[in-house]
Amino acid sequence: MGIHAYFRSLNELERIIRCPGKFKFEEHSVAAHSWKVVQYAKTLADIEEKNGATIDWKKLYEITSSHDYGEIFIGDIKTPVKHASPELRALIQQVEEGMVYNFIEEHIPQEYKSIFHNQLREGKDDTVEGLILEVADKMDQVYEAFAELQRGNTEKEFIVMYRNALVKIKNIKLNCVKYFLDHILPDMVNERILSSIDIKRITEEALALEGASN
Amino acid sequence: MGIHAYFRSLNELERIIRCPGKFKFEEHSVAAHSWKVVQYAKTLADIEEKNGATIDWKKLYEITSSHDYGEIFIGDIKTPVKHASPELRALIQQVEEGMVYNFIEEHIPQEYKSIFHNQLREGKDDTVEGLILEVADKMDQVYEAFAELQRGNTEKEFIVMYRNALVKIKNIKLNCVKYFLDHILPDMVNERILSSIDIKRITEEALALEGASN
Amino acid sequence: MGIHAYFRSLNELERIIRCPGKFKFEEHSVAAHSWKVVQYAKTLADIEEKNGATIDWKKLYEITSSHDYGEIFIGDIKTPVKHASPELRALIQQVEEGMVYNFIEEHIPQEYKSIFHNQLREGKDDTVEGLILEVADKMDQVYEAFAELQRGNTEKEFIVMYRNALVKIKNIKLNCVKYFLDHILPDMVNERILSSIDIKRITEEALALEGASN
Amino acid sequence: MGIHAYFRSLNELERIIRCPGKFKFEEHSVAAHSWKVVQYAKTLADIEEKNGATIDWKKLYEITSSHDYGEIFIGDIKTPVKHASPELRALIQQVEEGMVYNFIEEHIPQEYKSIFHNQLREGKDDTVEGLILEVADKMDQVYEAFAELQRGNTEKEFIVMYRNALVKIKNIKLNCVKYFLDHILPDMVNERILSSIDIKRITEEALALEGASN
Amino acid sequence: MGIHAYFRSLNELERIIRCPGKFKFEEHSVAAHSWKVVQYAKTLADIEEKNGATIDWKKLYEITSSHDYGEIFIGDIKTPVKHASPELRALIQQVEEGMVYNFIEEHIPQEYKSIFHNQLREGKDDTVEGLILEVADKMDQVYEAFAELQRGNTEKEFIVMYRNALVKIKNIKLNCVKYFLDHILPDMVNERILSSIDIKRITEEALALEGASN
Amino acid sequence: MGIHAYFRSLNELERIIRCPGKFKFEEHSVAAHSWKVVQYAKTLADIEEKNGATIDWKKLYEITSSHDYGEIFIGDIKTPVKHASPELRALIQQVEEGMVYNFIEEHIPQEYKSIFHNQLREGKDDTVEGLILEVADKMDQVYEAFAELQRGNTEKEFIVMYRNALVKIKNIKLNCVKYFLDHILPDMVNERILSSIDIKRITEEALALEGASN
Repeated sequence: MGIHAYFRSLNELERIIRCPGKFKFEEHSVAAHSWKVVQYAKTLADIEEKNGATIDWKKLYEITSSHDYGEIFIGDIKTPVKHASPELRALIQQVEEGMVYNFIEEHIPQEYKSIFHNQLREGKDDTVEGLILEVADKMDQVYEAFAELQRGNTEKEFIVMYRNALVKIKNIKLNCVKYFLDHILPDMVNERILSSIDIKRITEEALALEGASN
Repeated sequence: MGIHAYFRSLNELERIIRCPGKFKFEEHSVAAHSWKVVQYAKTLADIEEKNGATIDWKKLYEITSSHDYGEIFIGDIKTPVKHASPELRALIQQVEEGMVYNFIEEHIPQEYKSIFHNQLREGKDDTVEGLILEVADKMDQVYEAFAELQRGNTEKEFIVMYRNALVKIKNIKLNCVKYFLDHILPDMVNERILSSIDIKRITEEALALEGASN
Repeated sequence: MGIHAYFRSLNELERIIRCPGKFKFEEHSVAAHSWKVVQYAKTLADIEEKNGATIDWKKLYEITSSHDYGEIFIGDIKTPVKHASPELRALIQQVEEGMVYNFIEEHIPQEYKSIFHNQLREGKDDTVEGLILEVADKMDQVYEAFAELQRGNTEKEFIVMYRNALVKIKNIKLNCVKYFLDHILPDMVNERILSSIDIKRITEEALALEGASN
Repeated sequence: MGIHAYFRSLNELERIIRCPGKFKFEEHSVAAHSWKVVQYAKTLADIEEKNGATIDWKKLYEITSSHDYGEIFIGDIKTPVKHASPELRALIQQVEEGMVYNFIEEHIPQEYKSIFHNQLREGKDDTVEGLILEVADKMDQVYEAFAELQRGNTEKEFIVMYRNALVKIKNIKLNCVKYFLDHILPDMVNERILSSIDIKRITEEALALEGASN
Repeated sequence: MGIHAYFRSLNELERIIRCPGKFKFEEHSVAAHSWKVVQYAKTLADIEEKNGATIDWKKLYEITSSHDYGEIFIGDIKTPVKHASPELRALIQQVEEGMVYNFIEEHIPQEYKSIFHNQLREGKDDTVEGLILEVADKMDQVYEAFAELQRGNTEKEFIVMYRNALVKIKNIKLNCVKYFLDHILPDMVNERILSSIDIKRITEEALALEGASN
Repeated sequence: MGIHAYFRSLNELERIIRCPGKFKFEEHSVAAHSWKVVQYAKTLADIEEKNGATIDWKKLYEITSSHDYGEIFIGDIKTPVKHASPELRALIQQVEEGMVYNFIEEHIPQEYKSIFHNQLREGKDDTVEGLILEVADKMDQVYEAFAELQRGNTEKEFIVMYRNALVKIKNIKLNCVKYFLDHILPDMVNERILSSIDIKRITEEALALEGASN
């Protein structure tokens, strides 16, 4: 088969669930995660551009949307495994890249091979696009973990994920990181939390209202 | 709130399911659909570019990834409703655009408003990028409907969706459409279908094998 | 097809989920909602009857059980959309009624057409049955939103839904509304909330017990 | 607590799934089933009324909507168990009725007790309303089982359920049963089944079309 | 059919959900529950053996892994029903055992019948293995209920389940019960509960960190 | 923490889904799989014992029930990855064993450490117990894949899984393997497949019956 084999394979990332094994109130597929990373990155790049940077939009488009494509072949291996040893980590990445490489060689027609090898390459390098991808990827971990913690999830993993992602982000030297830390993160942390007391008060307020509502 | 309100809202598209009400073996969120459209469009644009077209990658990035963002406000209204009358269709689109507009005005800081108004605009125009978005969007309907029909779904809606999407695609004058019709669609239609007879044969073949396997 | 087309269509309301897009700990289908409205209405009508009203039970049966049947054609469009403009609201209702009308004309045999047109009509008028339907419909929003808030859901939408439904109910002049406000709502609001402290106490109490239990 | 305890309990039937343990492509809650029975019964009674019968609509409303309320206390016990012995069957029904009775005595205020005892009574007697309930209840088994078989479910239980329900229905002497057997069942059985061959043909037809579609 | 009928039937316990009807944040199948009971029992027997007891491991293996096999035939009947009357309880257990008996007689080849009758027998007797099974079975109720309460579930049923299971356990005279009460239960009850205040603090700590993390 | 940390961790295997990424009509958790392996192995060992073998039941109990416990730490890594290179396979197994080892060292009290190191060891050795575990593990792949293929799943992965598992089993020299191939597998393959034609026939037969049924 040809490019159809690639298009058909995308569906698999809708079925790979992030953070397997841990209890969560809401599951996230790798496909949905990838879309959110694409969206964050677009805005982060807008902020960066506004601050004078030059963005290679084609590159940013390619590396953000495909950054987890390799998980089709290896699944969402648990993070502690990836980091159990530098040797293992390197080997897993090597296998993942090898499997993506083989997939392209086997299925993609000759004339498009180089385009696909480029498109599905590892994108987290030290260019501004590579760094924005890194920030956007970690930012989704922050949002995922925050939502779980806010709803009362008691899995320790989400505290660790939230903290590590924040630390990773703050150490990246970009204007959009400064914007995130100064404007976005405070809004997130200050979101009002509902409590049972509220229900009583909301009820009383509603009943005290005069006229009708919508 | 500021940009956080926008980032937070993305999560909603993970919970809006396409084609509500119809029986399906596999559900697709608008977020996952959006990601697949982003991926198809990238390859379609590569094909187009290879055939001599010039692609505005920033624009393509923006309009593909955000093309269903407005569904956060209106949900995935059933297609027949959208097309019940030209008057209603126009009004619903107008409301959707109005709600996106208001969201930006209310939540996005002044300095980023124009960027967001541009980023979240309706993208299906007659430029090559707008047409590629249209092809990619319909192509996902083809893939979704094909998978349901192949698994034995008997909902008439998926035949209609499959057929209408194909007709929409074939009428768009792009090189990538020709490529799709000549190379991708035939591979899809010719995929082997398994049958119960196969199980018996596979069993017999496996038992007839000599040595071990993996 | 004939009445079979109608019976078969009922299944679709089991797949349309209320309040699409918002995070919820528990999903509710329109079918299950419809059944609960039928049950609330029956008791509300009993209360009303006990207070001297005369109930047209056939009418109440028809309008409560079918009150959301039209969502088969339009889905559960998000409430803000419905109310974005009086013009749009009227048009959507008009389209919904038109699609129900067309369905009957197309599928129901001549001799039963008038029965179906009557049975699937909009029921929220100013008669006691129409008002009871309105109360029962809003009461289910109160129960849905309350359960989410009580479990720690932090979506603002459920506060709004809870409050608006309460305000709608209290402005309806029926004896059953008075009964709801005086006897049912207080029981709901006063439900004991569990806390982590309880777990410790429950454990200690259980261990302090003498003899066996069930 | 009072009537609130009853209203709150309704939610439980949304979580009790019919036919537990068997593989099914689509699950049905007892709440959704109850709503469909309410809807079938309304139309069956319309047919009966058209043929000269007199319907007690209040009674029909009560017995159809509440006919599985007792499952809140006992769950959806597997059918073979219910029928393992006449002795057990009688005892289970007795326990179910006893638990409903106790619930009413414990929670419902004195002035509404008799209404609730009447409303939640066993409704399958030999009156026209009782017989319509029996037909509607079995008709939902026919629809449930048919949909599973049509999608390729290979559980023998659904053949048995389909067959037994049909036999039960055809032995009930009502005009609406005759209507069901003459007009509704044939439409159901004759529904077109899709096959993989169709996909190829649909594709070719779509591509052969001239002008555009929706 | 022969033993295949038994192997195939195991799959059904993956689809029977414990505690039907009650709201829960996480569902547990009878299959998963059975596996956890097997695992608890193994460790409890290790503790018992370490304290001098002699364990019949074959028996323990058999009775723990098959202790809920009969639910294939009767489903997870709600506990209150089982205990509504001693008469009913005895009758239900009798029916369950009868159905397991008949299944073996009908499907298992003559030469293996006695093995299966022994393997699928009721195992909760007064031997050390029977008592360990009872402890392990109740211990899973403790874990299930604790997790729900910890996440904020407000269903009273889980308090009752937690308390009753604890009382049942503490009245069994085994060394492993003493170990559970002295070492395992305290660890469980003392698990740290997260609160919204933590999120703020975790954020501040993460941002205050110097160097990078993994 | 102590043994509580181990007991609590078991819950994670209820959330790790086998064969991630592939479309399936029915999902299986590693916990449910583990239970089925325990059950198959028990019967396989009975067959082996009947044929003269001596079974170490304690060992069989331990190795079957815990054989996938390590997946708590690494997840269900896709099979192709595990086998991408002998080097990687060895390294992954080494990491998995290392993480189990560390878990025991960190959480299990000194006096129980050796018991846990033994209990959670890799069990697939060349003893009769190790071979039975291998057969039972592959047998569950046969059952899983067969059920998917029978329901019309078109994922090639299930054909591969089915075939490879069969080949693995048939090459193991045990009496229970002979029994499986001679008696169990044929029953499985010969299971009747339903078709749409059946529905028509079943309907006609049901309607042709005289008296009542169930």
